[in-house]
Amino acid sequence: MCQLLGMNCNVPTDICFSFEGFCARGGKTDEHKDGWGIAFFEGLGCRLFLDDKSSITSPIAAFIRQYPIKSQNAIAHIRKATFGAIKLENCHPFKRELWGRNWVFAHNGDLPNLPPVGNSIYRPVGETDSEQALCLMLNTLQQRFPGEKPSLEMLYPVLQEITSTIASHGTFNYLLSDGERLFAHCSTKLCYIVRQAPFAAAHSIDEDITVDFQALTSPSDRVAIVATTPLTDNEVWTTILPGELVVFEDGRPLNI
Amino acid sequence: MCQLLGMNCNVPTDICFSFEGFCARGGKTDEHKDGWGIAFFEGLGCRLFLDDKSSITSPIAAFIRQYPIKSQNAIAHIRKATFGAIKLENCHPFKRELWGRNWVFAHNGDLPNLPPVGNSIYRPVGETDSEQALCLMLNTLQQRFPGEKPSLEMLYPVLQEITSTIASHGTFNYLLSDGERLFAHCSTKLCYIVRQAPFAAAHSIDEDITVDFQALTSPSDRVAIVATTPLTDNEVWTTILPGELVVFEDGRPLNI
Repeated sequence: MCQLLGMNCNVPTDICFSFEGFCARGGKTDEHKDGWGIAFFEGLGCRLFLDDKSSITSPIAAFIRQYPIKSQNAIAHIRKATFGAIKLENCHPFKRELWGRNWVFAHNGDLPNLPPVGNSIYRPVGETDSEQALCLMLNTLQQRFPGEKPSLEMLYPVLQEITSTIASHGTFNYLLSDGERLFAHCSTKLCYIVRQAPFAAAHSIDEDITVDFQALTSPSDRVAIVATTPLTDNEVWTTILPGELVVFEDGRPLNI
Repeated sequence: MCQLLGMNCNVPTDICFSFEGFCARGGKTDEHKDGWGIAFFEGLGCRLFLDDKSSITSPIAAFIRQYPIKSQNAIAHIRKATFGAIKLENCHPFKRELWGRNWVFAHNGDLPNLPPVGNSIYRPVGETDSEQALCLMLNTLQQRFPGEKPSLEMLYPVLQEITSTIASHGTFNYLLSDGERLFAHCSTKLCYIVRQAPFAAAHSIDEDITVDFQALTSPSDRVAIVATTPLTDNEVWTTILPGELVVFEDGRPLNI
């Protein structure tokens, strides 16, 4: 199994504090040491850092932890290999272009016996059930909406439908973003927190680090953090229910 | 205009020496300071580092210069913006998946009046003529070969045809790789060198650095480096002729 971390904000924000504690789970406070990755959207552009080393030994992860990349949407993943060897092409997040937008995806869980993608448009490069699931989702979306990117009202029910179909094969906790919104689906384990004014200090569960968000933010900032399990021990995290597909926009969950 | 750097080898090799001199052209020895990027294939996987900062001021470029990532195929680019603003989504190389393989592309030149891609499969995320050209190429390849990845004998003439069509719109020097081979097309300016035993020392044109490849290689190693202009001043570089599409495999150009 793996762990997920996502961020969705109303202004570009760095994820350093959350990523620091999250990284510790890649072999220090937890066992997810078979690779890691993080994607940062900056406008329409997207930076994706991947490594098949553990997040606590990776020089790239060390660099990212101390280099504050500001982003409105970010997705990170630490891997404990189940399907697929420890190789770069099996590291999450996975990225594809659809409707002229970057789509980034990371998954926690196992999905045995997924239908093959065949000679469809989106095909997995690596061996994971996760990348196969992303391809199945994107192939469905592309077939249903071959023209322009649909509105959220059009997109959401189709995404929910293909998500349910895939989730019936196993465990399908995922984070998905097109740089505009963050979609978070829970099969078994996923939670979030929305930080907004009045900001307070937060203390990491994984590392003895406290950050005072009031000193780092403006009163209008709003940041949603989604993670497999809470990253702080002095804040109240909201559990996403099994079967729920939550959409975050501008740092908060939408009512859909 | 921009500058290109590519590497194709028979064993995973680091590109640090070539990248060091190449980076200097991103604002120090030359004026290509509107962003940069580098893609490293490792097996089927691919790492892509992009930045809209200049390569001489970018912290990520500084990290890459001193972190030897070994790869059999790598493509780097430094940008001088012509079409498209200085933004992350306009930085090369661009990456897409086709036939379950990563394809990476970087371009030097201007291509005014390219036909629009419309509602086709591959669509540009950013504003550059270059990404539009890649999408036109991949849409053509996907339409001609909707099944499995074709053999080189099947692929090459189709790639040559679409390359000629696009090149008729302007200047189309490019590097393209699927992680197995490196394709290099010259419209106006591109050259290469093959380094193999007996290896010698090479001296950078852009920085006063000499590297003794004999100390760093095995006798069976073979490395092809492709660049807009020669990167060393004590080696003989081969000029690729206008209209030529050279295919590199295992560190040497193929006779096609």
